[in-house]
Amino acid sequence: MSKFWSPIVHQLTPYVPGEQPKINNLIKLNTNENPYGPSSRVITAVEIETGNSLRLYPDPQSQRLTDAIARYHQLKPEQVFVGNGSDEVLAHTFQALFQHNKPLLFPDITYSFYPVYCKLYGITAETIPLNEKLEIDINDYGRTNGGIIFPNPNAPTGHGIGKDAIETLLKSNRDSVVVIDEAYIDFGGTSAVALIDQYPNLLVIQTLSKSRSLAGLRVGFAMGNAELIAGLVRVKDSFNSYPLDSIAISGGCAAIEDKAHFEYTRRRIIASRNQLATQLEALGFNAIPSQANFLFVTHPQYDAADLAAQLRQRNIIVRFFNKPRIDQYLRITIGTDAECATLVNALQAIING
Amino acid sequence: MSKFWSPIVHQLTPYVPGEQPKINNLIKLNTNENPYGPSSRVITAVEIETGNSLRLYPDPQSQRLTDAIARYHQLKPEQVFVGNGSDEVLAHTFQALFQHNKPLLFPDITYSFYPVYCKLYGITAETIPLNEKLEIDINDYGRTNGGIIFPNPNAPTGHGIGKDAIETLLKSNRDSVVVIDEAYIDFGGTSAVALIDQYPNLLVIQTLSKSRSLAGLRVGFAMGNAELIAGLVRVKDSFNSYPLDSIAISGGCAAIEDKAHFEYTRRRIIASRNQLATQLEALGFNAIPSQANFLFVTHPQYDAADLAAQLRQRNIIVRFFNKPRIDQYLRITIGTDAECATLVNALQAIING
Repeated sequence: MSKFWSPIVHQLTPYVPGEQPKINNLIKLNTNENPYGPSSRVITAVEIETGNSLRLYPDPQSQRLTDAIARYHQLKPEQVFVGNGSDEVLAHTFQALFQHNKPLLFPDITYSFYPVYCKLYGITAETIPLNEKLEIDINDYGRTNGGIIFPNPNAPTGHGIGKDAIETLLKSNRDSVVVIDEAYIDFGGTSAVALIDQYPNLLVIQTLSKSRSLAGLRVGFAMGNAELIAGLVRVKDSFNSYPLDSIAISGGCAAIEDKAHFEYTRRRIIASRNQLATQLEALGFNAIPSQANFLFVTHPQYDAADLAAQLRQRNIIVRFFNKPRIDQYLRITIGTDAECATLVNALQAIING
Repeated sequence: MSKFWSPIVHQLTPYVPGEQPKINNLIKLNTNENPYGPSSRVITAVEIETGNSLRLYPDPQSQRLTDAIARYHQLKPEQVFVGNGSDEVLAHTFQALFQHNKPLLFPDITYSFYPVYCKLYGITAETIPLNEKLEIDINDYGRTNGGIIFPNPNAPTGHGIGKDAIETLLKSNRDSVVVIDEAYIDFGGTSAVALIDQYPNLLVIQTLSKSRSLAGLRVGFAMGNAELIAGLVRVKDSFNSYPLDSIAISGGCAAIEDKAHFEYTRRRIIASRNQLATQLEALGFNAIPSQANFLFVTHPQYDAADLAAQLRQRNIIVRFFNKPRIDQYLRITIGTDAECATLVNALQAIING
């Protein structure tokens, strides 16, 4: 606390990211990173860019990357906004599109950065409880709002909803912006991007951190009607002209363009996830059907916090949220098959132990 | 304009950075980039990092980089805050430390992003005119304020003020934060960093974009009392957990640690600047004494906008600000000696008709 802080600083409750411990031989299944490295084309692009021009400012519009994303998603470049990770894109979205005199709606169990942004920008939030199966039910969102946001698939549950359900929501909610946070969409969900041309209030946010294995490069993007994108650009250009460094722009382009690597790695992760779910269910766990690169599991006989602590003693870290409704669940990132096997063996030993 | 925008978006006047044209053989003296490349140790560090771990999230605290900066400036790590370029550091500073019920003071002629941040965060500003020699006079800042900010040396004038003057200001202004924006300090100014331990309301902001030739990597930082830094961290952790990618963290460390390259290139730029000033004065220009990597010059007989346009026809771009008091000035970045010679020849040809 300090008298020099702006009053708002005292009221903030900062987001706490999953830990990044420096422990050798750790099996790190706590922050939904991709177990496979990025495309070799990214490495080549970064090397070329490094030799090029680091003394010069990057392109403030990141036009090459915006164009590459537009081509990939069959959109116009003016329907794409890029930022320093999808967290920055989300922050600008909250400030640019959600500061209205009506409450923002999002699920009670979801990405825990959303309420943090609300405090930062003075946005009133109304949380909508997931149903008893921990699923988003679109019918619960038919109330007065200044915006709606949820991830699809949702985090930390992994549960996804279909494009039809999102279109139903968009049809009945035309006066505020609906943001679909698709950080995990490439692991089995159906993107809402195809609805952008029909619904001017739809914004879809994606990231290169998960399905493109580039959490370390910090590239996220939003797609939507050109007017929504223009609002984000106005905020971005009032905050930081150059959010992406030259290397992130070049590496990001290469990642988007290497479809073969993307397809190969995401399919491996989907296969590993399905196998892991079966193995965990054989150990007595219940796993929420997941469309993400993680599983959200609970065991009727074993306490989740205790399981997490015991896994940690065996150098395996998973994510435990000490929060109402989900404090008997573990969120487990899908690692390599070898990592998944080590996890299953460890859980077997703990349970039989 | 869009009904979906938050009301504040309509009121913004985004910053317009200097243009980054894609023209071959351009002599680009418009955005104060360093004409010499970064340290070769940066290139090596980036290459190593790229092979490492781009699939993993970066360290959210950028601890290695924070520690390297602290060592360099003989501070404690908790007195250092790093961000995605000094523009992001400035944005967080405005939100975290300047949102008070009193006006923020800054010069009428200064970095034109300051009023942009004020609109973004609803901060009332009071601009203090530079004196008739276009210099900051500390005595003009003795009035009620919720904060004070100016660059030292000032941009776009290049005029610097001494550490004693800053200490005088700090002694008489103890109830609000004083931010010294030292983007250009390494080209001849005296840093206020040495005053940090005595004045808990002093924040000093620097960047790797200029004297470390890393505009393309986006690394800036703030130094001050641990309480001020804690306020910035609270805002940062409510905005984006991972503002610096892994490559920027590694490259930034290498840049800070290579003192020999830093000293060699900054001395070359200072020598080139002094020579260019003499040559321009010989052509009839008046140059404000500069402590930065640019000169701010005016010619009593030739219109500045016209000179800029004529230089552009010769593939040389310099910065012209169409603003009151400075619309007869050109801001010229110090390039290599060859670039400076080409500029002088071009101006000589234009003037001699």
